[in-house]
Amino acid sequence: MISIDRADLAFQLHDVLGLARLSAIPRFADYDREAMDGVLETAERIAMEHFLPHAARLDEHEPTFVDGKVEMDGAVADALAVYRDAGFFGGAFDVEWGGTQMPETLRVAAAFVFSMANISTSAYPFLTVGAARLIESFGTDAQKERYLRPMVAGRFFGTMCLSEPQAGSSLADITTRAEPQEDGSYLMVGRKMWISGGDQEISDNIVHLVLARIPDGPAGVKGISLFIVPKRIVGEDGTPGERNGVSLAGLNHKMGYRGTTNTLLNFGEDGPCRGELLGEAHHGLSYMFQMMNEARIGVGMGATALAAAGYRASLAYARERPQGRPAGAKDPATPQVPIIQHADIRRLLLAQKAAVEGALALCLYCADLVDRAHGDREAAIAKEEALLLDLLTPIAKSWPSEFCLEANKHAIQILGGYGYTRDYPVERLYRDNRLNPIHEGTHGIQGLDLLGRKVGMGGGASVKALAGRIMADVSAAHQIASLEAFAEMLATELAETVATTRRLAVATANEPRLALANATIYLDMFGHVVIAWMWLRQATVAARKLAEGSGDENFLNGKLSACRYFFTYELPKARTQRALLESLDDTTLAMKQEWF
Amino acid sequence: MISIDRADLAFQLHDVLGLARLSAIPRFADYDREAMDGVLETAERIAMEHFLPHAARLDEHEPTFVDGKVEMDGAVADALAVYRDAGFFGGAFDVEWGGTQMPETLRVAAAFVFSMANISTSAYPFLTVGAARLIESFGTDAQKERYLRPMVAGRFFGTMCLSEPQAGSSLADITTRAEPQEDGSYLMVGRKMWISGGDQEISDNIVHLVLARIPDGPAGVKGISLFIVPKRIVGEDGTPGERNGVSLAGLNHKMGYRGTTNTLLNFGEDGPCRGELLGEAHHGLSYMFQMMNEARIGVGMGATALAAAGYRASLAYARERPQGRPAGAKDPATPQVPIIQHADIRRLLLAQKAAVEGALALCLYCADLVDRAHGDREAAIAKEEALLLDLLTPIAKSWPSEFCLEANKHAIQILGGYGYTRDYPVERLYRDNRLNPIHEGTHGIQGLDLLGRKVGMGGGASVKALAGRIMADVSAAHQIASLEAFAEMLATELAETVATTRRLAVATANEPRLALANATIYLDMFGHVVIAWMWLRQATVAARKLAEGSGDENFLNGKLSACRYFFTYELPKARTQRALLESLDDTTLAMKQEWF
Repeated sequence: MISIDRADLAFQLHDVLGLARLSAIPRFADYDREAMDGVLETAERIAMEHFLPHAARLDEHEPTFVDGKVEMDGAVADALAVYRDAGFFGGAFDVEWGGTQMPETLRVAAAFVFSMANISTSAYPFLTVGAARLIESFGTDAQKERYLRPMVAGRFFGTMCLSEPQAGSSLADITTRAEPQEDGSYLMVGRKMWISGGDQEISDNIVHLVLARIPDGPAGVKGISLFIVPKRIVGEDGTPGERNGVSLAGLNHKMGYRGTTNTLLNFGEDGPCRGELLGEAHHGLSYMFQMMNEARIGVGMGATALAAAGYRASLAYARERPQGRPAGAKDPATPQVPIIQHADIRRLLLAQKAAVEGALALCLYCADLVDRAHGDREAAIAKEEALLLDLLTPIAKSWPSEFCLEANKHAIQILGGYGYTRDYPVERLYRDNRLNPIHEGTHGIQGLDLLGRKVGMGGGASVKALAGRIMADVSAAHQIASLEAFAEMLATELAETVATTRRLAVATANEPRLALANATIYLDMFGHVVIAWMWLRQATVAARKLAEGSGDENFLNGKLSACRYFFTYELPKARTQRALLESLDDTTLAMKQEWF
Repeated sequence: MISIDRADLAFQLHDVLGLARLSAIPRFADYDREAMDGVLETAERIAMEHFLPHAARLDEHEPTFVDGKVEMDGAVADALAVYRDAGFFGGAFDVEWGGTQMPETLRVAAAFVFSMANISTSAYPFLTVGAARLIESFGTDAQKERYLRPMVAGRFFGTMCLSEPQAGSSLADITTRAEPQEDGSYLMVGRKMWISGGDQEISDNIVHLVLARIPDGPAGVKGISLFIVPKRIVGEDGTPGERNGVSLAGLNHKMGYRGTTNTLLNFGEDGPCRGELLGEAHHGLSYMFQMMNEARIGVGMGATALAAAGYRASLAYARERPQGRPAGAKDPATPQVPIIQHADIRRLLLAQKAAVEGALALCLYCADLVDRAHGDREAAIAKEEALLLDLLTPIAKSWPSEFCLEANKHAIQILGGYGYTRDYPVERLYRDNRLNPIHEGTHGIQGLDLLGRKVGMGGGASVKALAGRIMADVSAAHQIASLEAFAEMLATELAETVATTRRLAVATANEPRLALANATIYLDMFGHVVIAWMWLRQATVAARKLAEGSGDENFLNGKLSACRYFFTYELPKARTQRALLESLDDTTLAMKQEWF
């Protein structure tokens, strides 16, 4: 039932983002449109043939912890071998380290395809790429040779080890220690919790990137350093040898995402555990934030992919399932109609389409900002793009996590009782997606990041940059009669959002608790405005293509309808939320804990 | 982590609904306040000692189908034996048939307690009571003796067999046949799908109530009759004997509610299957709707109970879990605080409290309407109460199903990564609750029922009756200074909702498809107004008690805060939805199926 909508990917990448321009940049010279399409075609084939078939089975038979080792369905290793052989581990990396230096936008699009088919299996390369990028950015040449190269080749996998049982959202409170040794290495002692991919027997080695404290360093986040801790010590010849003292203390049993092992790891408990400092001491958290920011956009992409899979499955079902009669048909002899003909089912489908394709547009837009920084650009523009990316990151993480989960809920509803059974994929997708508002910074943390930090960056420069981009697209949409009303609406919403942001900034100066109390609502409100923008951009291109008579009319009309749906059914909610935000309501603060 | 909030039950039953008045009615003479409290105390004890302990295990090890039989955790039978011995199966029934003729409001409150502890195990008596009530209403004395009495005693369990694989929402399309035999009995032939409790080895017998067609009857819903089909034929002495030809064809494997078997049943495939007509031929659907309406309120109550369990668990966690520091604290040496001190966590707790206690108030209000009909009342008032109950039934089913599911989502969020694991109950509660918008009439069907039928009943008499009740409570709230603004707000919302309803009624006459296209949104909007009413009622009582100095101040302040939360954060959403409804937007109708 799950199928990839290649037409939408082509529309978003080429018609909306104009990705083909990238081949003019030396770094991406190999990626003309044909090459890009080839990458996605390969991704689709591998995803459908090797990732999708074991997704349900892996969920039903999750990895287990037997004699200190992880046992899991062999199909995961097989699928990742095919993925590795096709070169997908190396997409993000320079040729120098064995990579294929794909445009980030294309890489994200390919990751979306794999995640649609099987998010659990896709997580292993996702984590590996994130860890490898940190080594690429901050490692010595020797560290890159030892760890980065085999990760780019897909032989070593990676993890990020941040949380501890007592320190999740509050990383200031981690206690894992790194004791300096005479040879310049460190001995690691501590426990890490929620480590995805923290153990498995698929890869030759696992490269853990571990946040820890060097004794006598500063308290809080300023005393956190980052360490490379391999599962097996890598010899001079690059071969993984003896076990390092990092051991699996247990597997977490989750509601979804079951195929990705999630672990409690002990460092230095079953023997000495060697680590190498990555970059400079005490800079660990800022390094990790580079990875975290990429991971946050990746989470948004994953949430979108899960909803896309549910949308496609429920759309296929709605076209096939006969049930009920057209409204007003009283004669029981009237044949039943497929449920896609019922208005409420179409509403549930449009809601999914609007969420999925709107969220995908945002994730790809963010990736495109990364790619643009690789071009020959003026420094000022590159700086603006970096600012925008910083501003949009909490939105790209949180909006899909919240509203694509809602889309998965709708997919179940369309299948009715069948959707509630494990015979169909939609209930699993919903369970998988429930993780996304939690990991890589909870929904609440994203709200604080956006309202408490990002919108104030550069004295409001980030919001100004965003407003400039949105208004440019509003102007373009204004040229198209059928989109004028939406363009007006978005312009108004944007102006009001900017005004609200300013008022909250003033309030924050006086009463930070009050101004930040509803940061999560601000996040959702802001997200709706951004997604409306993404829809106006898509609709503008669709309307132009329709007018030109180029492209598939059904497809383009679908884009216009989904845009209309979002502006009519969703965007007005932002106004309601702004009114609440402007009131600086203190209900949540005034509610004393003993009153609960 | 799950605990019963007896204080809230006492407040709702006694302070808000004044249940003690019922003991003046002869039918309920045994139920003074002390007796009622005793029932709930017993319910809580049995629920905590016998229902809760196996809830997680039953979910993890769901019933299996082995050699044509259902095998399940023995704790279910043990718990239900204790429940039976305490007389809970008989609560709904007359003393004549072995029941204890409890007030319905008390019975619903007790069911809420059991459902909080373990919804899967609670489902067996829930289904049995529903089926037994139909036999009580429409059966002959012989049928009552044969089936009702052992059901009231908890020896036979019951089911409702409506859906078939090809006919779920569209019952007009069922094809199961009942062939009349010379002895007045029927031979049943067909398949039924989604039958909860459809097989098990706990009870001495299972009494299936089956919708089927007598050959040569009218087509569509007018040709559907209702039959009693026992799993084992009951002998003259009342003992179940030989197997009837109803057989288990398979168990459905669900996302949640796993402890309640859900089955595909064959009738007449493995031998002749005898059935008895219940009531008159061709009236089956209207009979079944009596049960369905009760079941719908029961579904709402169950959804509320699941959210209540999640709320209590997440509240307990939030009070214990240290993480982060107060807003503005920069010094890492500041000790961490329990997360309940963070505004966003309080928001998630208040959202749950507002949903749970608002929804519970509505379910109990509906039950109270049933009880009032048993009093010595003028016929006109009793008729109004029946109308109100009809009108509120789709709300009582759907609002908790939608918004208490959302509450369960919040409970997971509070526990963070821990909430996503099966080590804590909140993920299970969320999975369980996802069923409720689907069964006993989907969310979409409830919307059509409300807007397409219920609000138009008696030429608008039902809405008028509701408005009268709401305005009486608005007047009472107006007397209290701190509630005046909320009273105004509710009065406005109500007036606007009535106006919108009228406009939609006019539109329906001309363009039924257009007027009904957004029936689900109307349902949610209407539900928010009703729940705001329930909150204003609770707040009025709480404010009075606070002023009198009676009752626990913390508890009463909590009620006032939750009321404020609902009016500030939730009720404004109704206005946004009304604007959409009034626009008679046709986005969903205009979207052609080939555009998806």
